[in-house]
Amino acid sequence: MLNRVRSAVAHLVSSGGAPLPRPKSPDLRNSTSAPPAAPPQAPRSPPARAGSGSAAPARTVEARASFSRPTFLQLSPGGLRRADDHAGRAVQSPPDTGRRLPWSTGYAEVINAGKSRHNEDQACCEVVYVEGRRSVSGAPREPSRGQGLCFYYWGLFDGHAGGRAAEMASRLLHRHIREQLKDLVEILQDPSPPPLCLPSTPGAPGSSDSSHLVGPQSCWSSQKEVTHESLVVGAIENAFLFMDEQMARERRGHQVEGGCCALVVVYLLGKVYVANAGDSRAIIVRNGEIIPMSREFTPETERQRLQMLGFLKPELLGGEFTHLEFPRRVQPKELGQRMLYRDQNMTGWAYKKIELEDLRFPLVCGEGKKARMMATIGVTRGLGDHSLRVCSSTLPIKPFLSSFPEVRVYDLTQYEHCPDDVLVLGTDGLWDVTSDCEVAATVDRVLSAYEPNDPSRYTALAQALVLGARGTPRDRGWRLSNNKLGSGDDISVFVIPLGGPGSYS
Amino acid sequence: MLNRVRSAVAHLVSSGGAPLPRPKSPDLRNSTSAPPAAPPQAPRSPPARAGSGSAAPARTVEARASFSRPTFLQLSPGGLRRADDHAGRAVQSPPDTGRRLPWSTGYAEVINAGKSRHNEDQACCEVVYVEGRRSVSGAPREPSRGQGLCFYYWGLFDGHAGGRAAEMASRLLHRHIREQLKDLVEILQDPSPPPLCLPSTPGAPGSSDSSHLVGPQSCWSSQKEVTHESLVVGAIENAFLFMDEQMARERRGHQVEGGCCALVVVYLLGKVYVANAGDSRAIIVRNGEIIPMSREFTPETERQRLQMLGFLKPELLGGEFTHLEFPRRVQPKELGQRMLYRDQNMTGWAYKKIELEDLRFPLVCGEGKKARMMATIGVTRGLGDHSLRVCSSTLPIKPFLSSFPEVRVYDLTQYEHCPDDVLVLGTDGLWDVTSDCEVAATVDRVLSAYEPNDPSRYTALAQALVLGARGTPRDRGWRLSNNKLGSGDDISVFVIPLGGPGSYS
Repeated sequence: MLNRVRSAVAHLVSSGGAPLPRPKSPDLRNSTSAPPAAPPQAPRSPPARAGSGSAAPARTVEARASFSRPTFLQLSPGGLRRADDHAGRAVQSPPDTGRRLPWSTGYAEVINAGKSRHNEDQACCEVVYVEGRRSVSGAPREPSRGQGLCFYYWGLFDGHAGGRAAEMASRLLHRHIREQLKDLVEILQDPSPPPLCLPSTPGAPGSSDSSHLVGPQSCWSSQKEVTHESLVVGAIENAFLFMDEQMARERRGHQVEGGCCALVVVYLLGKVYVANAGDSRAIIVRNGEIIPMSREFTPETERQRLQMLGFLKPELLGGEFTHLEFPRRVQPKELGQRMLYRDQNMTGWAYKKIELEDLRFPLVCGEGKKARMMATIGVTRGLGDHSLRVCSSTLPIKPFLSSFPEVRVYDLTQYEHCPDDVLVLGTDGLWDVTSDCEVAATVDRVLSAYEPNDPSRYTALAQALVLGARGTPRDRGWRLSNNKLGSGDDISVFVIPLGGPGSYS
Repeated sequence: MLNRVRSAVAHLVSSGGAPLPRPKSPDLRNSTSAPPAAPPQAPRSPPARAGSGSAAPARTVEARASFSRPTFLQLSPGGLRRADDHAGRAVQSPPDTGRRLPWSTGYAEVINAGKSRHNEDQACCEVVYVEGRRSVSGAPREPSRGQGLCFYYWGLFDGHAGGRAAEMASRLLHRHIREQLKDLVEILQDPSPPPLCLPSTPGAPGSSDSSHLVGPQSCWSSQKEVTHESLVVGAIENAFLFMDEQMARERRGHQVEGGCCALVVVYLLGKVYVANAGDSRAIIVRNGEIIPMSREFTPETERQRLQMLGFLKPELLGGEFTHLEFPRRVQPKELGQRMLYRDQNMTGWAYKKIELEDLRFPLVCGEGKKARMMATIGVTRGLGDHSLRVCSSTLPIKPFLSSFPEVRVYDLTQYEHCPDDVLVLGTDGLWDVTSDCEVAATVDRVLSAYEPNDPSRYTALAQALVLGARGTPRDRGWRLSNNKLGSGDDISVFVIPLGGPGSYS
């Protein structure tokens, strides 16, 4: 990911850009130093391994000053050194001994070819238990109704301009999700539609009954139907925001420099929620068919959102940038000529007479992996980056860089999955050199070489995907089998079986 | 369409809301009073009928004070009265005598059941010749290179709060498109990529060669490739804006009250461009398959754009509205309780504590056909409405109501079309009671009853679609064959054959 942030501009200024006002987040400091989420003993209890991150002692980010890899890799000091070796680029996976990751999830990673000191990707795989905060009705919780909820969680975090943000997110984001779900524990387990309004204090009556509705009048003649699914989506969306706010609060004392892309999967009550903020990617490969479960957020895909923000809030451009897009840099000698442009509304191009302010640097420029926002960063969503400034300027990249994820939902109960059906998550190190179809072909090739009930097949698949993207050292570089350049980036891959031997079923 | 604007709020205030700054439009007054576009004599010459709108004498909108129907219907005074009769609701089509509409296009319309005095839909079908404004190189035009361009054009305009805006758009929008295309006549006929920069004055050298490029540096190492297609898209997009600006300029003197949805089709150089601003709809039915060629713009589909604008520019909400969405109106007695909400970033829902400003009316409310923006209007894109204010307020609906279309492109050369393949355009009067699949079934049923080379089959199909949506008078209302209520709205339908006897080929 480092190549997606101009290294020259990652100078961290201590004065932060004021974030846009949003609802206040609960302070998670207590929860982050409290014992971590533990798997439940109840019916939803998963085959979680005791040594996974969920059972590791909780450490707040300030206690960790050195380079780290995901806890579930169980790396010894020697193993950590090997994982950190840019020359060998050994592929790392959880050990084949002991308990596996939930659902027999496969995982593999490899460090970059030297573009940053450490592997700035991070990963997390957890089973998280959510205890309800209180009963919906406001009445004290009855012991028999005190069943919490359990969700399975996978996260990939691709750091840039340092690894701290990715590390922090890998340790805390699922706790923010848990925090957001606490109010919903009873509601999600109640088959009736969610109440629209809850009492402010326990014991006070709720106002969810229809007698509180405004009578039929114009557009308010009915109330909107809100699904349980959309409550989970809302919880995940807000968890990203609160995670980002926590990074903003804690960045000074704890050196949370840089930022990270975040791609997380939550499995809850039969549905898979895939939330993405950045340029990682998730696809389902089901019976050979590819189902995209995310899209990438880059200056190209988000051009119109960025231009709209610059157009409506020109003060965010600081007189240095123009919100208009041009196909190349406008030169002073071209003043008065007519050049192709696009504004925030356009998908087509038209000619406009070049004026003085068109000579400013465009908010969005470049193509493909070279596309940049404010000439600085190649992704437009992610966590952190609160101190990131435009090169040679004090202009903040936020709020153009948004922490808001897109969440897609996949209902696992709508299809009978076989052991070869998988959800593949990868950082851009994988996808820069591997197409969706190539991944699907590798899924088929590797899984067919293993027995369907062999739980190690998903780790083998993750390793094959990472190796296929890294390549082998040849001709003074890492080369793929077709002799093209392999990825020199950090590469991390989760393979989550949707109908495998260790899955939820 | 009238039911989509609260009639109470259509009080027209003479002081206009200031439009957001945009590039200036060319003044079209000259071109609108100049002789109208005429079909060319050259190879692209169409089978245009002499009596169509393209040959009618040009009249500026101020000259027309009375109710009108599309010129190509050739209605006599008696026919005009029948077309205006809410009780009979006779279906109108071009006469079966004389020359047909270009491509043997089918058309049918019917007036509403009494919700507005006149039929507020308008339609236009033209062949438009575009003469180049000047040569790209700036050199005087050589006679041999003086070939202009010709495009085919169809437009449906669904007016609200009066029919003037729809009428004006039906007479002028294609001329704005022609105006935008004038600079592109040579460029579009030149197979090489469009020049990125044009000289400001004829004779001055262009700067389109690569020697003018900035050297390789960061995101500017290459210039963006701009296609001919995207120039046409940009031309259509800007034409909508200039049309809207003209309405803003002329609204006082010429009583251009109200607004309209606009759905237009441009066929140019082998490609079909479908531009939509509003809630009309276009679909292609090809070999029985349905290909959507537009999407509707309503408070529901555009919720996040509207909320984002309200969030970033709260002054546009005038202290009367909140940009947050709630599933129903918040009541004062619920202050302090927690209600479900969505902000501009969310697709899911979450609970928030109700504060005083949440009691404001929400910017977006209601569902389906009852969804409203600012409690006033049910569409979020369209032309006109410059004087539209929120009920009992001076708050303008613009710029929440945007004149910007979405343009979709269909390459006619990529598929060998048969005479049964059609592009169907309809105002919401059709689509409110007819699904895409029902339209496809009617396409199949009606066209199979006619010989493939019978040019009247497309008008018969348009009539069948309009009749199917109107129904027959029964039980004190207009009823469909399944006894459901038919559409009481104005209904207008174009059926454009993509491989028919009169088509471009």
